[in-house]
Amino acid sequence: MKNTGCILQQVFLQCSQMNFGETSVRVREASGGQIFTGIKKDLKTTDDLSIFYTPGIAEPCRRIAADKSLAKKLTIKKNMVAVISDGSAVLGLGNIGPEAALPVMEGKSMLFKQFGGVDAVPIVLDTQDIDEIIETVVRIAPTFGGINLEDIAAPRCFEIERQLVERLDIPVFHDDQHGTAMVVLAALQNALRIVKKPKEDIRVTFSGAGAAGIAIAKLLQEWGVVNITMVDSRGIIACERPQLHGEKKCFCVHQEGDLSVAMKEADVFIGVSKKDLLTPDMIRSMASDPIIFAMANPDPEILPHLAHESGAAIVATGRSDFPNQINNVLIFPGFFRGLLDGGITKITTQMMLKASTALAKLVPDPTADRIIPSALDPGVADAIAQAVKS
Amino acid sequence: MKNTGCILQQVFLQCSQMNFGETSVRVREASGGQIFTGIKKDLKTTDDLSIFYTPGIAEPCRRIAADKSLAKKLTIKKNMVAVISDGSAVLGLGNIGPEAALPVMEGKSMLFKQFGGVDAVPIVLDTQDIDEIIETVVRIAPTFGGINLEDIAAPRCFEIERQLVERLDIPVFHDDQHGTAMVVLAALQNALRIVKKPKEDIRVTFSGAGAAGIAIAKLLQEWGVVNITMVDSRGIIACERPQLHGEKKCFCVHQEGDLSVAMKEADVFIGVSKKDLLTPDMIRSMASDPIIFAMANPDPEILPHLAHESGAAIVATGRSDFPNQINNVLIFPGFFRGLLDGGITKITTQMMLKASTALAKLVPDPTADRIIPSALDPGVADAIAQAVKS
Repeated sequence: MKNTGCILQQVFLQCSQMNFGETSVRVREASGGQIFTGIKKDLKTTDDLSIFYTPGIAEPCRRIAADKSLAKKLTIKKNMVAVISDGSAVLGLGNIGPEAALPVMEGKSMLFKQFGGVDAVPIVLDTQDIDEIIETVVRIAPTFGGINLEDIAAPRCFEIERQLVERLDIPVFHDDQHGTAMVVLAALQNALRIVKKPKEDIRVTFSGAGAAGIAIAKLLQEWGVVNITMVDSRGIIACERPQLHGEKKCFCVHQEGDLSVAMKEADVFIGVSKKDLLTPDMIRSMASDPIIFAMANPDPEILPHLAHESGAAIVATGRSDFPNQINNVLIFPGFFRGLLDGGITKITTQMMLKASTALAKLVPDPTADRIIPSALDPGVADAIAQAVKS
Repeated sequence: MKNTGCILQQVFLQCSQMNFGETSVRVREASGGQIFTGIKKDLKTTDDLSIFYTPGIAEPCRRIAADKSLAKKLTIKKNMVAVISDGSAVLGLGNIGPEAALPVMEGKSMLFKQFGGVDAVPIVLDTQDIDEIIETVVRIAPTFGGINLEDIAAPRCFEIERQLVERLDIPVFHDDQHGTAMVVLAALQNALRIVKKPKEDIRVTFSGAGAAGIAIAKLLQEWGVVNITMVDSRGIIACERPQLHGEKKCFCVHQEGDLSVAMKEADVFIGVSKKDLLTPDMIRSMASDPIIFAMANPDPEILPHLAHESGAAIVATGRSDFPNQINNVLIFPGFFRGLLDGGITKITTQMMLKASTALAKLVPDPTADRIIPSALDPGVADAIAQAVKS
């Protein structure tokens, strides 16, 4: 499907992207979406009907009516996760609404099944109101063994997640926050091994203080990173800025200026923002052996070859067509596998640190081009699931 | 799995039921529910990931953002139906709650797939409030190509269905009402052919005026039945009864008494109520060649052999282990197949009459033991789908 005329790397980015996109549209046209529901046993005889439908079906109903917890043993609740989005922050495309978000949720559901054996169902919501989203998820929750929130804009995603965690007795996970945070931390652990810098000493600059940025910063802090500067569309998040909301306020610094100011002498750049925001000059102003995680999707904050030409020691992006793909698929299928198998109802920071470290350890000898496993490496989900349950 | 010691028909009912039930529990314990989500293409290469996830996935999102109607072509919306229940009126078990309703919704989803090729997802709701149910379904609707309401108690099911039909641009179908009504009408068409009675002349007595009873009565009326008497737990629905709600009021009569009064000289009994409510004496008081549809689930209003001993010409039940199973599975898979394939957004009475007649015609030479096809007969769903689209 690739245009073989695309030779230059810069051109290739656009060409391959266009063709993957066209192909994605074509396969969807042909198949009507990427997932389906299957049945575990074909219904061929009247006995099959009597067992799987009436009258036999009444018995599991009666048992669960007497003991609600049996739903986790006798029904799809055991292995089914809802992938829920309001379509307000989809990839780098922004607020495109529920219908347009559906392909991403389907893709996610495919990955859940392929890598974690988890039955995942996309549910896109025709509301972007915090309370309505919470109420809706609470009401459909009896069906599911877990809730995966996806592509919901900050700051409301924080409140939605907080209330759902409180109200539901199944695990609730906002993948854009925690999935991303765990993969970034795993990649950072290995990147720091290569450049031989201790976590306590590094200075990390963020571009982007949305759901992912805040969650990564929090997890890095829990892990032991001390010096963090966050930059959003208005510049460095200075404590002097009026009306800072709760989550951003936790990371404010007594410094003002734009991204170029924040990049000076930084050891690590973590980009969860927009294409082309990071310039070669900014990288040249960083400390020695700069680590660049340019994860804007689908177009990174800087293209890998440009980053390397500007002195970057290690470059990672969110894309599968460059080395070091920082992709949540490395975490969420195995993470939910572990949650479901372990009967875990609340996610803890400790579980996240364990999963992240387990992921880093899957690359025993990291190099600049391989700080993180590939999504296609066998055993990734198993290792994460084990770490979650341990 | 059957207990071979069960020889007497009366005993067999309980035995087989118990064993189908036990088997239903066991298969669910082993498999964790009866449906799963599958993926249409295994993800094996980085190109697969680039097409089905980032960056390729962005393109179908962009296209749908520009034209929302493309969701019906490019996503699971094309073929996915939500099977929604609040667990308030499950089988004959009553208000057992969402978790306990889940096995029935899974069973339904299996039948959707097996017979109609429809991808159906159970969604059980943690609310029984009319407005909350409506809001929840409206909010999750962008995911689905159709809504199948299931086992929601009357009278609130009527209001829920009415408002959802009004607010959504996808077909909304309450199977307990319309699925049941269409199958009953099909069976009645053939039963009347056998006993040679014209529809205009028959007297039909209902036991049960819930969702199914009201819907059957309405469809029978649309088809041409004039003389209908409905009986609920308080007796004949007399127009003199105070505080009659809208749906029941449409079928009130100027007569009082219990079921035994209403059964005198009736030609047809339609039971959607509770086990053992119909007695041999009542059948003996009916007009010649009585037709008995005793459809309470899992236990009918009278057992078939008792009904026949009391003079019934034709007996049907809701069970797969007796002849003439009046089961919605004969309608809903094909009906939704037709709705989805035809791009139909609102269901009409005309479509229902057509589907019902198409179902009746699948038995060209009806006999007392075969007034309706078996759920396992090939071609049923196709015939219904064609009728809906025609």
